[in-house]
Amino acid sequence: MANAPKANAVVGQSGGPTAVINASLAGVIEEAVKHSEIENLYGAVHAVQGMVKDEFVDLKGLDAKTLDLLAASPSSALGSSRDKPDEEYCKKIFEVFEKRNVHYFFYIGGNDSANTAHIINSLADKVGYDLRAFHIPKTVDNDLLVTDHCPGYGTAGRFVASACMGDDLDNRALPGIKIDVIMGRHAGFLTAAAGLGRVREDDGPHLIYVPERGFSMEKFCSDIEKVYEKFGRCAVAVSEGICDENGVTWAARIKEDSEKDAHGNIQLSGSGDLADYLAGKVKQAGFAKRVRADTFGYLQRSFAGFQSPSDAAEARACGRRAVEYAMEYESGSVAMKRTGNGANYGVELFRTELANVAEKTKSMPDEFINAEGNDITPAFVEYAAPLIGELPKTVYLANNAKV
Amino acid sequence: MANAPKANAVVGQSGGPTAVINASLAGVIEEAVKHSEIENLYGAVHAVQGMVKDEFVDLKGLDAKTLDLLAASPSSALGSSRDKPDEEYCKKIFEVFEKRNVHYFFYIGGNDSANTAHIINSLADKVGYDLRAFHIPKTVDNDLLVTDHCPGYGTAGRFVASACMGDDLDNRALPGIKIDVIMGRHAGFLTAAAGLGRVREDDGPHLIYVPERGFSMEKFCSDIEKVYEKFGRCAVAVSEGICDENGVTWAARIKEDSEKDAHGNIQLSGSGDLADYLAGKVKQAGFAKRVRADTFGYLQRSFAGFQSPSDAAEARACGRRAVEYAMEYESGSVAMKRTGNGANYGVELFRTELANVAEKTKSMPDEFINAEGNDITPAFVEYAAPLIGELPKTVYLANNAKV
Repeated sequence: MANAPKANAVVGQSGGPTAVINASLAGVIEEAVKHSEIENLYGAVHAVQGMVKDEFVDLKGLDAKTLDLLAASPSSALGSSRDKPDEEYCKKIFEVFEKRNVHYFFYIGGNDSANTAHIINSLADKVGYDLRAFHIPKTVDNDLLVTDHCPGYGTAGRFVASACMGDDLDNRALPGIKIDVIMGRHAGFLTAAAGLGRVREDDGPHLIYVPERGFSMEKFCSDIEKVYEKFGRCAVAVSEGICDENGVTWAARIKEDSEKDAHGNIQLSGSGDLADYLAGKVKQAGFAKRVRADTFGYLQRSFAGFQSPSDAAEARACGRRAVEYAMEYESGSVAMKRTGNGANYGVELFRTELANVAEKTKSMPDEFINAEGNDITPAFVEYAAPLIGELPKTVYLANNAKV
Repeated sequence: MANAPKANAVVGQSGGPTAVINASLAGVIEEAVKHSEIENLYGAVHAVQGMVKDEFVDLKGLDAKTLDLLAASPSSALGSSRDKPDEEYCKKIFEVFEKRNVHYFFYIGGNDSANTAHIINSLADKVGYDLRAFHIPKTVDNDLLVTDHCPGYGTAGRFVASACMGDDLDNRALPGIKIDVIMGRHAGFLTAAAGLGRVREDDGPHLIYVPERGFSMEKFCSDIEKVYEKFGRCAVAVSEGICDENGVTWAARIKEDSEKDAHGNIQLSGSGDLADYLAGKVKQAGFAKRVRADTFGYLQRSFAGFQSPSDAAEARACGRRAVEYAMEYESGSVAMKRTGNGANYGVELFRTELANVAEKTKSMPDEFINAEGNDITPAFVEYAAPLIGELPKTVYLANNAKV
């Protein structure tokens, strides 16, 4: 193929932020400055919105210290966007790219971002414009195809696991039912991370519900009752995306109920709905007095000063690698292959076609979910533990031998 | 006064857990083993419940490594209790103490715990029993009298500040209205910590509402609208304890509304209510499309692996000091006096009478709240910053000069 052109580059960050998406951006920047083929590196302000509005910031002038701070900063430092560009939208972006002599395009995001890169790249192909379009994976949901896992997942999973460890100890101290609602509309990977901090036999969460399995309210309540009878308490992790037997999300069902019920005073549209609803149902079941619920919300993806070391390093490496690939290839998405597990954990990066990642999503494989559909398996723990990093050891004394 | 008796000691942890209450416990244990006057150190299982049921675990046998892990573990390792003992209840405790030859009593908790220690100590006095009763302060609310601040507050404040830093960056990336509801029924210290991570002029939270000021829904919406007009977004921190002009909590008002409205399907009793209600009101006001709300919930007090260094060290020192005082005095509560601020921050521990701390609570002083009642002041930042420790620096690029 042709030599890499001497031209300008655009990088953008799309979709929901994560706590390591800036590490990928830092990786793109630090690699780009090494290559004289890349003249200017433009950061697209608010992703595709900045690309159509011709709004860019310079990224080549950042010093090494700023890059390290950037890599450790949560959320998307360039701003993000929820726009899902169609062909018309992408044409406008391409026009701006032509005008600015942009021949390199790096887009950090999920499957929609891979699709945007794919469409723009196809437009360039049609007119014989040498555009090098690369997707850098990012998502707390961990639902991209091809790659073993996604940058962003490990840190969000570390947050969820740490929160649930502390929450379980809190629930031991003041026993009752505790329900935690965790992000993940379609894939249960993040909710499943709730179980990664379990060490003692009676450590919670004792039950974990992911969207890959139908969620029955009766089974939910009876599962909890069984644990409550055994331990005198029960900690539960539930995905926000749980669906009923017909594939309708419980979140949507609750909203419907509430719209029927409300006379203007209560608008059930915030993020605590599902947790409160589930707690209400368990209270109604009547076997436990103390029932509490939390919704982890945006903290899961944007908490400051809390990264999984392997996730942060991989996110940055993926950014660097995308620029390296652009010197050799026309397009692609950076993916990770696992080279070892446990103490031998490691990854190799490789290139896959944009079309392999665009639009599609991945769910939790069956082997990661137990037969009853209310917990994770040891196979999941083996898969996810190295991604979130080592968790703190904790001590609980009240179950020691009495004197 | 009389020499310290050679006898057994009891230590307990009461009320809502914190992420450093175990550091205070570790402090009690490591100091107790140094004093031959203390023969056995009994940990009361689930606080006063264990004391009346005669349920204790041995604490003198823990090794140094376990003590360090304990000090870093969130929640109350001995279990906790919400029981508020009256005189009858305390009599039963005292009987168990007599039976077990317990002459030292260390109780880690808030103002109720100080009161319990005070009652039991008075009972001992009446019959001439040499009981040495000491209270070790603990509360994320920071609402105890006498002491400059309370162990537990700094770590919870660090969590809240870090969460709000990340949340504000998230809100920059995808602009809209974001409301965060933070713990604190009566005192606004923890909610106020939301503002400690602000560095840039437009950093959020842009508005902070504490329970010390009346909360008007009209003012709330118009405050947000003003910020939204200025920055195109608005991040808000609200205490769970906010009250209307008549001193009725908004949480109670919402519950009343919801009970009027619901026909059995929706039970608005979980912890997301207030956040969702406030988000609903802002949506109704109609000036912004994207309105989101989170309730930080139990994560604030029990997140694993995340302590303020000064808070953890002070909590442990307070535990040790209580034991030292018990060798010299009959009773008391450990308190902290600040010896310097900023880079010269430090504390001195001192003893105060149980009666000075028992039952009473402290609110945010006026000088910590701005005149409009919707933000904190520089005086609060000076007070609280050293308690939560250094926060990470973050980078945001989208506001840089456009190229």
